[in-house]
Amino acid sequence: MAKRVFNFNAGPATLPLEVLQTIQEELLDFKGTGMSILESSHRAAAYEDVNNGAMALVKEILGLGDNYKVLFLTGGASTQFTMVPMNFLKEGQIGVYADTGVWSSKAVKECNLVGKAQVVFSSKDIGYRRVPKKHEVVCPPNAAYLHITSNNTVWGSQYHEFPDPGAVPLICDMSSDIASRQIDYTKFALIYAGAQKNLGPAGVTVVIIRDDLLAKIKPGLPTIFDYNTHAKENSLYNTPPVFAIYVVKLVLEWVKKQGGLMAIEKLNAAKKDAIYQLMDKYPEYYRGPIDKDSRSCMNITLRLPNEDLEKKFIADAKTAGFVGLKGHRSVGGIRVSLYNAMPLEGAQKVADFMETFKKANP
Amino acid sequence: MAKRVFNFNAGPATLPLEVLQTIQEELLDFKGTGMSILESSHRAAAYEDVNNGAMALVKEILGLGDNYKVLFLTGGASTQFTMVPMNFLKEGQIGVYADTGVWSSKAVKECNLVGKAQVVFSSKDIGYRRVPKKHEVVCPPNAAYLHITSNNTVWGSQYHEFPDPGAVPLICDMSSDIASRQIDYTKFALIYAGAQKNLGPAGVTVVIIRDDLLAKIKPGLPTIFDYNTHAKENSLYNTPPVFAIYVVKLVLEWVKKQGGLMAIEKLNAAKKDAIYQLMDKYPEYYRGPIDKDSRSCMNITLRLPNEDLEKKFIADAKTAGFVGLKGHRSVGGIRVSLYNAMPLEGAQKVADFMETFKKANP
Repeated sequence: MAKRVFNFNAGPATLPLEVLQTIQEELLDFKGTGMSILESSHRAAAYEDVNNGAMALVKEILGLGDNYKVLFLTGGASTQFTMVPMNFLKEGQIGVYADTGVWSSKAVKECNLVGKAQVVFSSKDIGYRRVPKKHEVVCPPNAAYLHITSNNTVWGSQYHEFPDPGAVPLICDMSSDIASRQIDYTKFALIYAGAQKNLGPAGVTVVIIRDDLLAKIKPGLPTIFDYNTHAKENSLYNTPPVFAIYVVKLVLEWVKKQGGLMAIEKLNAAKKDAIYQLMDKYPEYYRGPIDKDSRSCMNITLRLPNEDLEKKFIADAKTAGFVGLKGHRSVGGIRVSLYNAMPLEGAQKVADFMETFKKANP
Repeated sequence: MAKRVFNFNAGPATLPLEVLQTIQEELLDFKGTGMSILESSHRAAAYEDVNNGAMALVKEILGLGDNYKVLFLTGGASTQFTMVPMNFLKEGQIGVYADTGVWSSKAVKECNLVGKAQVVFSSKDIGYRRVPKKHEVVCPPNAAYLHITSNNTVWGSQYHEFPDPGAVPLICDMSSDIASRQIDYTKFALIYAGAQKNLGPAGVTVVIIRDDLLAKIKPGLPTIFDYNTHAKENSLYNTPPVFAIYVVKLVLEWVKKQGGLMAIEKLNAAKKDAIYQLMDKYPEYYRGPIDKDSRSCMNITLRLPNEDLEKKFIADAKTAGFVGLKGHRSVGGIRVSLYNAMPLEGAQKVADFMETFKKANP
C-alpha cells in the first residue's frame, strides 16, 4: 500500500480512498463490458446507467424533486459566469450580484461582458471578511436573477443564511460547498459546481436547474451554450466527460453510504471545529480574517504573525505529511480545505500540528 | 486478466492497453506524490510536468514549431463551432465552410448563430459521398477563415489533399483523424480535436493555434471563450481536466514509442486495407457509399444488401467479440472505426469475420 498524504488542496482535492480503489479495480474491464470506462461510448447501455444513476443521486442527496434537471457540463464555474447572463439576461434586465470574493467578482466581470451587472452587496472594502445578512441583499425590479457564491474558496467565508429574492430566481455558485451540509436546496433556481472539490475530479461541472428557469431562456443562443440543449438531451447532446461523471457517481454513492448529508454535515462540523477551536485558543497567533458568523466549514483561512512563520508552517506541515496548506496566491497566508472526503483524522492531525508548531515557534 | 473485446466505437474509443495499465498502476499514488492524479492540484509541480509534457508531445509528434500554441480546453468540437466565429468573425466578414457531413454542417449552423457563414462547397446533394478536390474550394475576399472537417466520422470520408486558401487562415476540425497520418500540419492556422478518438478519453479538446491567428482575435469576448486567455495562461486560466490531459500525455508517449506518425500511418493503412480490400472483393455485398478517393482510413462505412442482414451482422459480430460496428444512428449501416489504438489484429479479424459472414449469409 502506497503512502498517502493528507491533501488539503482547495481543488482539485482529496477523494475517498475507497472510490479510488474501485476505479483502480474496474479500470481495465468496466462491469464485464470487456473495455475500460475510459473507452466506453457515451451511447452505450453501461454509460446510460452511469449518467442516469449520477443524476438521480444528485437529486436524492440534495433533496430535489422532478422539477429540477441535473446537467453534466464542462468548463467549470468560469464558463457558467458567461452562460448565466447569456441565457437569462433579457432586454432591459440586469444581473444582480452579491460580491463576496474572488470568484463572485469574476462572475460580475463576465456578466458585464455579456450585458449589465449590478452589485447590490459587496464586502470588498472590508477585505471580504463577511457575507451579507439575509436582509442586506435586495433586488431591483429589473433583476433577471440574483447570483451569489455560497462559499468563498479563496477568502474562507460562507453563507449560513441565504437571501430571499422573492420571485427573482436565485442562482448560486456552489462549487466549493455543494453537498457539504443540509440546506434547503429547493430555494435555488440554478446551482452550479465544478466537481473538483466535493463531487469528484476536475473535468465536469454539475448544473442543477429548475424547470421554470429553463422556460425563461432566451431563444437563438449558440446551441452548446443553451441550457435547454443539455436538458432536452439528458446531457448527451455531445460527448460528455464520461470518466469524470463515472467518478462523480462513485463519490455520490460514497456520500450516501456515509449516511447522506446529515452524516456529512456532522463530519464536516467536527473537522472545522478542530481547527477553529485551535485558532480561537490562540487568536493572536492564528489570526482568522473572517467574521465568526461568516466562517467557512470548507476552507479555513488564517494568518500567522509574519510571513516567515507562514513559510515555515507550510514547509514543516509538508514534512509532516500535510499537503496544500498554502493560501491562494492572491491572498497569501494559510488555508485548510476540509472537503467532504477529508477524514476527521486529517483535521485533528493538523490541529495537533498547529498546537505543536506554536510551541516550537512562539 | 479480464477478457478484452475489440472496440470499434467511433468515439469515445479504444485506448492502448499499456496506457490503461499504466493508469491503473499509478492510480493511488501518482509518481510518489502520495495522492492520485485525480486529486492533484492543477498548480502542483507534478501536474505542471503533465501539462507541459503533453503540449510538447503534441508539437513534436505533429511537427509544429514555436509559432504554435497547444491549448487543452473542454466542450468538444461543438464548443469550437461557436468559439471559432466568436473569436475571428469581424464586421463585414464571413466564415467560409466546406460542408462534407454531419459535423461540418453543424459548424455552419453555429457560425450563422454568431455571424454569417458561407458554404463554398457541399456534397450534401450527393449523400456526402466525397470531399472536395483542392481546386473546388475558393474563398471570397471577405473570408475571415476557411473551415474544413478533415475526416467525416459519420459518413466515412476523409481529405487526402487540402484546400489552399492562400492568406485566409485554414481552420480544421480534426477530431477523428488527428495524429493518424503524416500530413503537413503547418498548413493549418487552427486545428481542434476532441481527444476521445485518437488522443485519449472524452473530456478534453486539444486546440492548436498559430500565433498570427491569436493576434487576430476580436477584443471584448467573454474571458473563457477567448483563445488568448488560454494561450496566455498556458491552459491554466481555470481548472483544466487534469486526468484527461494526463491520459493524453500517456497516449502521445505511446504514439512516440510506436515510431511516431510514420509508423502509425503505416499501421493505419494496413488496417483500412484489410477492410476495404474485402469490400472491393464483394462490392455488391459490402457496399461502400464513399467515392474511393475520399475514403476514410479512420471510419469505414458500408451497407449490406438489406437492413435485416445488417442487424444480423452487428449481432453476430458482437457475439464474436467485436463491439461498436453499428453505423451512426443518423445514417444506419455498418461503421468500422480504426483509430490509432486499434491493433492490426482487430481489423484483420473483422475482415475474416466479414468473409465468413458473407458465406454463411449469401
